Amino acid sequence: MGGDHGPSVTIPAAISFVKAEPDAELILVGLEDVIRAELKKHHAEAHPRLSVLHASEQVLMDDPLEVALRRKKDSSMRVAIEQVKDGKAQAAVSAGNTGALMAVARYVLKTMAGVDRPAICSIMPNEKDGPTYMLDLGANVDCESHHLHQFAIMGSVLVGAMENIARPTIGLLNVGTEDIKGNEVVKQTAKLLQADHERGALNYYGNVEGNDIFKGTVDIVVCDGFVGNVTLKAVEGVARFMGNMLRSEFKRNIFTMLAALIGMGALKSIKAKFNPARYNGASFLGLRGLVFKSHGSADAYSFEWAIKRAYDAAKNDVLAHLSTMIAELMPRDPVAPELPNSTI
Amino acid sequence: MGGDHGPSVTIPAAISFVKAEPDAELILVGLEDVIRAELKKHHAEAHPRLSVLHASEQVLMDDPLEVALRRKKDSSMRVAIEQVKDGKAQAAVSAGNTGALMAVARYVLKTMAGVDRPAICSIMPNEKDGPTYMLDLGANVDCESHHLHQFAIMGSVLVGAMENIARPTIGLLNVGTEDIKGNEVVKQTAKLLQADHERGALNYYGNVEGNDIFKGTVDIVVCDGFVGNVTLKAVEGVARFMGNMLRSEFKRNIFTMLAALIGMGALKSIKAKFNPARYNGASFLGLRGLVFKSHGSADAYSFEWAIKRAYDAAKNDVLAHLSTMIAELMPRDPVAPELPNSTI
Repeated sequence: MGGDHGPSVTIPAAISFVKAEPDAELILVGLEDVIRAELKKHHAEAHPRLSVLHASEQVLMDDPLEVALRRKKDSSMRVAIEQVKDGKAQAAVSAGNTGALMAVARYVLKTMAGVDRPAICSIMPNEKDGPTYMLDLGANVDCESHHLHQFAIMGSVLVGAMENIARPTIGLLNVGTEDIKGNEVVKQTAKLLQADHERGALNYYGNVEGNDIFKGTVDIVVCDGFVGNVTLKAVEGVARFMGNMLRSEFKRNIFTMLAALIGMGALKSIKAKFNPARYNGASFLGLRGLVFKSHGSADAYSFEWAIKRAYDAAKNDVLAHLSTMIAELMPRDPVAPELPNSTI
Repeated sequence: MGGDHGPSVTIPAAISFVKAEPDAELILVGLEDVIRAELKKHHAEAHPRLSVLHASEQVLMDDPLEVALRRKKDSSMRVAIEQVKDGKAQAAVSAGNTGALMAVARYVLKTMAGVDRPAICSIMPNEKDGPTYMLDLGANVDCESHHLHQFAIMGSVLVGAMENIARPTIGLLNVGTEDIKGNEVVKQTAKLLQADHERGALNYYGNVEGNDIFKGTVDIVVCDGFVGNVTLKAVEGVARFMGNMLRSEFKRNIFTMLAALIGMGALKSIKAKFNPARYNGASFLGLRGLVFKSHGSADAYSFEWAIKRAYDAAKNDVLAHLSTMIAELMPRDPVAPELPNSTI
């Protein structure tokens, strides 16, 4: 039900996805009538691997967390996550309100043993044609070094499982590459990661800068949720800005229109490589279940990528890897439990 | 002498600049022989508005701050800034080591009365065809709310003088637009800015997100130096990435090469609009003198923009405006003096 477009985007995406993945089954959670009508519109009301589960409420994009958590107990978001908790689904995917989704996911699924705070991890394209994973993208706006340390561990496990990389490299997002750079939290985190590196637990590369995300310097870029969220949105903003300029410049006169026509293939190929659609689907890491968040503005093509991401994570048994590795890697020091800090 | 290319870039830029601005005079500071040889190469050794001032040392890109500050007392950077202090120049421009430049500038010029910490302010292009000013871009990686507050005041004065805008709008960079969003420092800053807004001192717009930088939502985006530096470098990184993809896609086959050829005008026009060159030249704000920092990798065209930025600031009397307005706007509460925090 979520996102800017609701079932008119999520249902076509679901239909296309089950066609592409013959072993996948989807439970469509939300207002049954609306979902069935949308399925019918696409002649998929009888698809054997698409079932419908009614949920009478919806979390709106501007609902406060309290409403999502305490008042709308039969929201599509909550019912979907409960399917994961009850073992009826291996992952939940939503395009809804990020803060609410994280709060409900934390409440229903709980955090994994050893994890203080779940984080949001997404991927970006890079010059080496591979994805750069980046976390946290906004779940935790006030972080201490042990939080960033845990993000690094979770990111390393995720990339190991999803990309089949034995020792993924971890970079700490900073204002420079030298050890003396950074704010206090980052400097402290560097020490923790360096210690892990020395005992062979993590493949810590060192400090990286903002441009390293796109250079593909490391597999995983670790930062706090404030920096991650601002950076992600700035990057999306500049990409959209450049795309719009390109389009308007190519419309300027007959020659450039001709060029655009001939060059369409090139532009399409760039779009395919860069288009945020392909990179849609952020993982919520550190919960006792898989939850994926699609961009609210996603179209059907883009939302399908988020489903695919969730499917890949389930198939690669990311959750089991996470529990095993976290038990092994997470520092044993007792850390006081903390209040939710999710404020996206 | 600074930057990746030294006089082979800075001297041609200087020559081109004095040709374009008939009332401008430049003092070229550095190794006299090298500068004179470069001037000769460009047949400008006798230009009446280009003088040479010898400085026997250079701050290298990887020199620690201590070396720049205490050991190289006759560095080109230092001698240039001393010209500003002594009233022999109205502004200094350098493409050298940012951290060293800020440290030397603070040491030689001192901060303005009422300013705790100088900040680095630069501009980015936006969809409204205007510049978005953003600060701090890296001088202060650990900030309290009163620092961000001062950045907002300084940014407002700079934009007022440089762009001739009576009440420039100020946005606080955050993870969302609602008041409840953000980390503690940002929430506290919002209160200070809101209070200024209510008494008519500043035109505070509210929270802005990363993509608002390019939407042109506000004239000035305020953030701490960690977030600003990471965001700036990420944006530069993604812009370069997209540019490279465009180039390589257009080289793929004869049709796309043809398209590229015809579309060259469009690409050039985008480049002119977006090219970081045009946006080169960051101001150091809050010092008792004007200092501008060019990108280390700037070419001559780009370095000339940095000189032009400094020239415009001097011409618009930014320094006088800053002192007047800061005395008027800066909160009077005594704030404990702080240690330098410049760690770029």
